[in-house]
Amino acid sequence: MERHVTERVITSLTNDTVKSVRALHMRKERETTGRFLAEGLKFIGEALDQGRSPKLLMVGLEARPHAILDRAITATLRDGGEVVTVTHPILEKISRRDNPQTVLGVFDQVYTPLANIRPSSAPAWVALEQVRDPGNLGTIIRTADAAGCGGVILIGDCVDPYSVEAVRATMGSVFAVAIARATAAEFLAWRQTWPGNVVGTRLDAAVGYRDASIQSPALILMGNEQAGLTDTLAAACDVNVKIPMRGRADSLNLAIATGVMVYAVTDAS
Amino acid sequence: MERHVTERVITSLTNDTVKSVRALHMRKERETTGRFLAEGLKFIGEALDQGRSPKLLMVGLEARPHAILDRAITATLRDGGEVVTVTHPILEKISRRDNPQTVLGVFDQVYTPLANIRPSSAPAWVALEQVRDPGNLGTIIRTADAAGCGGVILIGDCVDPYSVEAVRATMGSVFAVAIARATAAEFLAWRQTWPGNVVGTRLDAAVGYRDASIQSPALILMGNEQAGLTDTLAAACDVNVKIPMRGRADSLNLAIATGVMVYAVTDAS
Repeated sequence: MERHVTERVITSLTNDTVKSVRALHMRKERETTGRFLAEGLKFIGEALDQGRSPKLLMVGLEARPHAILDRAITATLRDGGEVVTVTHPILEKISRRDNPQTVLGVFDQVYTPLANIRPSSAPAWVALEQVRDPGNLGTIIRTADAAGCGGVILIGDCVDPYSVEAVRATMGSVFAVAIARATAAEFLAWRQTWPGNVVGTRLDAAVGYRDASIQSPALILMGNEQAGLTDTLAAACDVNVKIPMRGRADSLNLAIATGVMVYAVTDAS
Repeated sequence: MERHVTERVITSLTNDTVKSVRALHMRKERETTGRFLAEGLKFIGEALDQGRSPKLLMVGLEARPHAILDRAITATLRDGGEVVTVTHPILEKISRRDNPQTVLGVFDQVYTPLANIRPSSAPAWVALEQVRDPGNLGTIIRTADAAGCGGVILIGDCVDPYSVEAVRATMGSVFAVAIARATAAEFLAWRQTWPGNVVGTRLDAAVGYRDASIQSPALILMGNEQAGLTDTLAAACDVNVKIPMRGRADSLNLAIATGVMVYAVTDAS
């Protein structure tokens, strides 16, 4: 495999590069470095398609030749990143999995400033207040992408969208949609400029989620897993809607509720 | 707390009752005993509301008085079950969590035979082929309940709906909807008797999921997380529909896709 000839091969679990990548499981390290870990060729291919190359590309000794891997190596070196080859135990240690992906990428985190969001570039956007579960957040980013939403805005104290678990759940969509973050105050100020309707989702709303006439672009607000949308944010919405609970369950999982909402809104727009 | 006076108090982690409950994390033990573990008063209250009492009710020493707990103790003893009091370390050991629920119940698993399903008792039902992820399955059971579906039919080699992780994700709906299981052959034979439409969900279907005219009761078929619905099952559907992928994502998470489908179908029926 000629591509490995000129690259550094790491075999030690205590190597500094290995340690720095493993540390990306910790939020503090991600915040300090502004980087995150994405595992597998599907993710790396999606990043490349979006014009983003890894700062560090880590290739397992057993990685098979693949067109995306070739592109990744070229893009990484072209943009000043590093390519290293590593052993299987290192991939296991970094991924904390028995069957790790054989190619890993370390990327810069990207947050879109609220001021740079162009609402009318998509039929709908999602805003989440104090979302707590990384799997939910990653799944919501994937769902927002699938439905054709422009992106996801994180309000207040949310889980990190660049955690390893959240990123995995996005299945690559972390590179495909805008991700923004704001305090509640920043969000409320910015919301004044929204050209379409801001739609809150609350279990105690009076209007059914299919009965509201929503002016595009829609900004769909979802609350925290336990508490739902706060009164403050609900009051800032043009309309609050509910998804009917027809059985014994008193609520939906947050990612499911978001999926039902974004498809209902984007189907109608 | 008078209610504890007459009950057995267990303090040893190696007590046989403790060991037998811990073993319910293993599929083999669940299959041998036909039982499963449900954690927390929300679950136990839901079970009682459905007329199902625990075979074993395990109450932490620190459990606070609660009307549901009183009902659970009464129902357990009335129906010949056992009530035991246990220490916090035992609850941690059984739940494998740092912050365990203080009340646990061991229940009989219930599967509804296909022949006992009354299709017209609900506007929609869900059938899952070879679902692999316990969190997905539990979330789908919760979602089916919330949307007013009659139940969930598991086709072929599926993950266990009574695993601890799946049960947790149901948030109590495991007691609220029918759960059935069948081989593909059994399902295909039974499907012939379905009075409404059988609707498959496939990424390669030609018809949009909102464009099909579906005759109630709907039987919504969803495939495996990786492979989707098999050709065999898709061919047995009256119609196959797709949920549009409008962004870069090439698929939805299975539980999200099921949520979008069941709400679209039940909203329309």
